[in-house]
Amino acid sequence: MINPILIPELRLMLAEQDDQGLIEVTTELHPATVADFTEGLDTDETWRVLSHAPLAVQADIFSYYSNSKQDEMVHGAGRQRMSALLEEMAPDNRVDLLKRLDESVVEELLPLIAKAERQDIRQLLSYPEQSAGAVMTTEYASVPDDITCGEAISRLRLQAPNNEMIYNIYVLGSDRHLLGSISLKSLIMARPNTLVSEVMESDIVSVQVDEDREEVANKMARYDSLSIPVIDASGRLVGIVTHDDVMDVVVEAATEDAHRMGGVSPIEGDYLETSLQRMWFNRFIWLSCLFLTGSLTFSVMQHFEGLLKETAVLSLFLPLLLSTGGNSGSQAATLVTRAMALGQVQPSIWKRVLRHELAVGLALGLSLGVMGFARTMLVGEETLDKVNGWHLSMVIATTVAVICLWGTVVGSMLPLIFKRLGFDPALACSPFVATLCDVTGITIYFSIADMYLTLP
Amino acid sequence: MINPILIPELRLMLAEQDDQGLIEVTTELHPATVADFTEGLDTDETWRVLSHAPLAVQADIFSYYSNSKQDEMVHGAGRQRMSALLEEMAPDNRVDLLKRLDESVVEELLPLIAKAERQDIRQLLSYPEQSAGAVMTTEYASVPDDITCGEAISRLRLQAPNNEMIYNIYVLGSDRHLLGSISLKSLIMARPNTLVSEVMESDIVSVQVDEDREEVANKMARYDSLSIPVIDASGRLVGIVTHDDVMDVVVEAATEDAHRMGGVSPIEGDYLETSLQRMWFNRFIWLSCLFLTGSLTFSVMQHFEGLLKETAVLSLFLPLLLSTGGNSGSQAATLVTRAMALGQVQPSIWKRVLRHELAVGLALGLSLGVMGFARTMLVGEETLDKVNGWHLSMVIATTVAVICLWGTVVGSMLPLIFKRLGFDPALACSPFVATLCDVTGITIYFSIADMYLTLP
Repeated sequence: MINPILIPELRLMLAEQDDQGLIEVTTELHPATVADFTEGLDTDETWRVLSHAPLAVQADIFSYYSNSKQDEMVHGAGRQRMSALLEEMAPDNRVDLLKRLDESVVEELLPLIAKAERQDIRQLLSYPEQSAGAVMTTEYASVPDDITCGEAISRLRLQAPNNEMIYNIYVLGSDRHLLGSISLKSLIMARPNTLVSEVMESDIVSVQVDEDREEVANKMARYDSLSIPVIDASGRLVGIVTHDDVMDVVVEAATEDAHRMGGVSPIEGDYLETSLQRMWFNRFIWLSCLFLTGSLTFSVMQHFEGLLKETAVLSLFLPLLLSTGGNSGSQAATLVTRAMALGQVQPSIWKRVLRHELAVGLALGLSLGVMGFARTMLVGEETLDKVNGWHLSMVIATTVAVICLWGTVVGSMLPLIFKRLGFDPALACSPFVATLCDVTGITIYFSIADMYLTLP
Repeated sequence: MINPILIPELRLMLAEQDDQGLIEVTTELHPATVADFTEGLDTDETWRVLSHAPLAVQADIFSYYSNSKQDEMVHGAGRQRMSALLEEMAPDNRVDLLKRLDESVVEELLPLIAKAERQDIRQLLSYPEQSAGAVMTTEYASVPDDITCGEAISRLRLQAPNNEMIYNIYVLGSDRHLLGSISLKSLIMARPNTLVSEVMESDIVSVQVDEDREEVANKMARYDSLSIPVIDASGRLVGIVTHDDVMDVVVEAATEDAHRMGGVSPIEGDYLETSLQRMWFNRFIWLSCLFLTGSLTFSVMQHFEGLLKETAVLSLFLPLLLSTGGNSGSQAATLVTRAMALGQVQPSIWKRVLRHELAVGLALGLSLGVMGFARTMLVGEETLDKVNGWHLSMVIATTVAVICLWGTVVGSMLPLIFKRLGFDPALACSPFVATLCDVTGITIYFSIADMYLTLP
């Protein structure tokens, strides 16, 4: 978020070399606020303002910049400064940045970084995106199980300045095996000579390093914890995911789902900052696929050309009927997709979902069918031409009911099928379901019409 | 989440009066896990199992039950037990529960609760839903500004057992005015005889008690804090919102938005637990409104009846064209709605959004128009009847382009207009935009067709 209010003052301070003022601005405000105020400066000015704060603070401020601002600052004259900053940044923020940069830039930056940090970076970079390993940080507070609470507090005093999250402390056995956790609160409340192993919580929830990050978010939301430990296949602690990173995951996942449900390839970053080309591409990909699929409706319509020419009034109802099918389908798809995202529904219970949706779909179909019947009875003689009004009303009522039931069933089952096949269930929402419902809806409509209107 | 795996064992333990075993189960596992295991028991059994844990643990476990289970447990024999539990529950969880219950039940429960707690409950109940006041808790850790860090730690030891969140400690001046905050980490790191006012952070982000809860979530995500203080109009601290409550807010808000975007009145609680009547009602309301609005398409179609009868081939393209308009509209609406939810776009910058979307819409319209032209050129002589193939291709290409541009503009502007009028912008998404695009799309299509096909 750019906040331009201080830009003139900051430029003035730079021009007047008001170091004292710049030190105050950069160190006394919240790093996020400093980031907002300086986002609007150019790269060189930003580096000059930042240089007034200690490296650790600079790293904090930097992590609050927008992605595009961060990328700019790495290039050009910033490279040398950047390598110093990278050593100070929290491991997870650092890896997020490096993942976005060109490989060539990363390769230039890495040699400038201390060896220990470099290994940590290479390790974190190697975890697949969307996994717990990719969002975790390796800066956690830990103590062995065989010391006293008093000793533990002394050790924490030494660890704390480097650790993002010291309120959950992990208790490790030999070979870094995770034995339990203890909150700073209970460590402080405990008598100093109690053993850590006596007060620690040993029934703790952890995640595997390759587990999906949304699964991590669900577990953390369920257990209301500040951080969750990440372990490898043999139960060794490799990192933690903290509450603020999980919040980012939840917000990002909701945006991704919303975009997919609206028929756009997910767009990361700020809406207004995204280039027109990218915007066009992410939307065109979908629209053109939907257009091609939608072309099927033309072929289906062609199939019923004869009936259409004979009974022109049928085409007047087409948009209404198709949108009803699409709407009921997207309702069902949305509900099931969201329920899956919240962990309430899994593909394995598809039979229960189907029973549920069959009942709702039937009720919806019948009630909308009645409305369709009433609407058709209002059509004037002139428009009806030679068609019997009662027959037509029955055609519309039956079609509305069947299309609605069909849309509901397709809409509820598709996300489950997508999930089972390993696709994102949100893909099955709105536009995709709507197009599928269109194609099938036309067939349903004209088949029913053909049946009724040829009645004596 | 019901986990039935331990149900038979728990019933056996109850039958055999294995108190030791039940104490272990209820106290040694995470309260969320105990809740999962006992969710499947009946009300009486649940109360008997719970009674083996201390009241505070019971309150914790209780807060992890599903809403329906909590409601059941309040009724009948549970009432007396419930009042004891209510005193132990965190103020925000307690108020969430009471808000859901019938007023008569609340009035019966309140007299059984201690007076101080009762006043706190009445106060919290009075804040409007969706406000910071409604999600905050009144259990926060605070210290005056004129004591030393050492004294502060001693005071916290006394406050801590009752406080949900002691890692951010708020520093209060006279009359509970919020002066600053200090993290437990820096309190521990500071020398014991330093004054609290010297180490506290005085530039802190707070929210007003009547601020919208989504605004609270945005601020907390931005500042990565564990809790955010809630103040009244005169700057007095009245409560805090903690990271776990904000996570619930974010997840709930995303669900609400997703439901609205999919055209369902938001359904709280578990998908499978929602009654069929409620499911039907929340979906029927929308479908019937959309059906009535959609009926407008019929009237518009009627207007062009003559053209349709003369040139039957036009109706074959109708579903494809309408879905293209609807899809481009729902893309734009989704992107703008989500950008607003993330605070990237406000109604005040509608001109920038319009320029942006006009450009993207034009590019999308042109590229899809080319596809439309190509598709139409493939139509056989027989279907064309007496219509000129080139003319028809131009009609379809122009219509696709115009409909797509129009859908994009309508879809991007509607959420902003809705927001400005005080409605939820998510309401403007998918089905609503799609129906509006249908009605206008038909007009666009037949007007263009009328123009081209009457050319010599």
